[in-house]
Amino acid sequence: MDYDTPLFFHVMSYAMEAEHDVIDMVSGNPDWGSPPGISDGLHEYADLGGADFQYPPSEGLRELREEIAARRDVDQSQVVVTCGGGEANYLAMARAMERESGDEFILTDPVYPYYPGKTKMLGATARFVATDEDGTLSPEAVREQASENTAGIVVNSPNNPTGAVYDEETMREFVSIAEEYDALLVSDEVYDHFDFSGKFTSALSFDSDNRIVTNSFSKTLAITGFRVGYAIFPPELVDVAKTRHMLTNVATSRPAQYAVLHALRETTPEYHEENRQLLKSRVETFTSALDAAGADYSEPDGAFYVMARFPDFPGTLSNVEKLIDEAGVAGMPGEAFGSSRDDWVRFALVTPEVEEAAERLADYFG
Amino acid sequence: MDYDTPLFFHVMSYAMEAEHDVIDMVSGNPDWGSPPGISDGLHEYADLGGADFQYPPSEGLRELREEIAARRDVDQSQVVVTCGGGEANYLAMARAMERESGDEFILTDPVYPYYPGKTKMLGATARFVATDEDGTLSPEAVREQASENTAGIVVNSPNNPTGAVYDEETMREFVSIAEEYDALLVSDEVYDHFDFSGKFTSALSFDSDNRIVTNSFSKTLAITGFRVGYAIFPPELVDVAKTRHMLTNVATSRPAQYAVLHALRETTPEYHEENRQLLKSRVETFTSALDAAGADYSEPDGAFYVMARFPDFPGTLSNVEKLIDEAGVAGMPGEAFGSSRDDWVRFALVTPEVEEAAERLADYFG
Repeated sequence: MDYDTPLFFHVMSYAMEAEHDVIDMVSGNPDWGSPPGISDGLHEYADLGGADFQYPPSEGLRELREEIAARRDVDQSQVVVTCGGGEANYLAMARAMERESGDEFILTDPVYPYYPGKTKMLGATARFVATDEDGTLSPEAVREQASENTAGIVVNSPNNPTGAVYDEETMREFVSIAEEYDALLVSDEVYDHFDFSGKFTSALSFDSDNRIVTNSFSKTLAITGFRVGYAIFPPELVDVAKTRHMLTNVATSRPAQYAVLHALRETTPEYHEENRQLLKSRVETFTSALDAAGADYSEPDGAFYVMARFPDFPGTLSNVEKLIDEAGVAGMPGEAFGSSRDDWVRFALVTPEVEEAAERLADYFG
Repeated sequence: MDYDTPLFFHVMSYAMEAEHDVIDMVSGNPDWGSPPGISDGLHEYADLGGADFQYPPSEGLRELREEIAARRDVDQSQVVVTCGGGEANYLAMARAMERESGDEFILTDPVYPYYPGKTKMLGATARFVATDEDGTLSPEAVREQASENTAGIVVNSPNNPTGAVYDEETMREFVSIAEEYDALLVSDEVYDHFDFSGKFTSALSFDSDNRIVTNSFSKTLAITGFRVGYAIFPPELVDVAKTRHMLTNVATSRPAQYAVLHALRETTPEYHEENRQLLKSRVETFTSALDAAGADYSEPDGAFYVMARFPDFPGTLSNVEKLIDEAGVAGMPGEAFGSSRDDWVRFALVTPEVEEAAERLADYFG
């Protein structure tokens, strides 16, 4: 497994090329629409022109950094506005390698496939820690893999693909394992607005020089195409990260930053609450149908995904294609996420047709 | 010298903190305004919402890649749309290192400071080739530095900071030196629309598996803040570059890509011609004043910059600060661009106050 895109694109185009109607539950693109502040902000920006169309500060528009810093209760100098969560994780993992305190990353299995991809690109080695079947990641299991070779520990809560949300005690332990082994905890929290359990705890809750928090507005504001995210570094790690950001991208796209800033100021908590309620009801609809299909499934505490295991129907690529052909539902093969879930299929609940998809699966397997 | 930003920001903030009026000739931000297609495109995009706000293809919007490919007469599969020229050069130089055919980059002196910055970030070594005083870069001098350790040769034409434009024969030689030493020529052509000499030749003119061309819409469309550029790779090098692009940024910001596509379709050649004429007349105004000041100066064949050397006034940081304080004109110290021009100052002709700046310098030194 290198990174998910070849497989991802393969499944996407297989589904799109099908002549019958296929419900796309492959991608993680929200379908519930952005808050109006995004369009309003873009319109406002489009009329500025001139100097406002030129380079923003490399680390991000000052007012956007201030807004993020105020919300996250950190100093704005610790914030780097990035080209989405993708660049935020790249900067964080590169920063871990630059410390020259180990060249291994501890990753989970199942894993969000970009992490092993970045690990390889950075010339590091991945050590995988299997989660429990319910997606729980035991700090003890992480500690067993930690050593002086550990450069970083990369965790994602709420989790893609398992839907697990790590509680306060677990996150505290991850931070302290990182400290113990002079490594960096990279806590990817892009689904933080999609916690159904109330137990989500940001790694920022624990004061430490050994943790970097990454985040993005891609999911929060349903703008995966805008590419605006951020990373929050401990004070003594941030300067080198800013240098890499500058030498890689110079800066993050300004129209997108401007629209995000505008939307952050205008969007009420109700927007996020409605999206959570929508997702919770989709989870219910979908998992009821999985019951009818006789499948095992994850019950997500957060994020957008349900993993399912159908009886005598392992989630291989060829079975995923069969589901597309015969049931008209497209999911992601479990093998995209590591070895521990290769008999599962991941379904993204980002389509208004969740109910129809659920019925199709229940009919197919029922 | 690491990369120019600390010095750049130092000079910028020194100029901005001055209590008197200072004319900013430090940054490379065009002041002549974007073509209307940029704002129009952003407005159009802002109203799309929904699926159009989500992930574009990682390598860039299909129609934008097709537009670029048609204009550059390459196959669209060779095009990667990047976060500006900055990421394009990063991908190109990283690609040269990934071939494991050398770990040195041949750079010019004076040099655009991001190239040595990226060289260092990629763990490579820079070998500098001094240009002639008029900015000419001799292929012979490049060949003398080339060896089996050469991973890449990075050139920039029209050149920042010298204003040199390499002619057809010179570019052909650079390509053939790269081929000879199994290295990659990285030809950064972001100022291609600002050639006053008519002799600009793209490295794409020479069919070769050893050259990558990078470009950007930052200068061409006066949108340095949008961060849309591209790199054109030989067919057998492009896949790995696309992987790095995906693992670094996932994709380039979609609103900015959409606006660029719209502007490419709407903008007439007159827009570019007017900007060239404007710059040519600024060069004349400015260099006449430099004559009056008794200075040596570069006569740019392209790009936005004039380098000047004043009698008994080397272009050190402290003298640049003195010019800000006493003449009210801010330029960049020559030392930002390497050792060969450390007695020069670079002035960017991106302000309507070029004439006033010229008068101030003539008065100060006259």
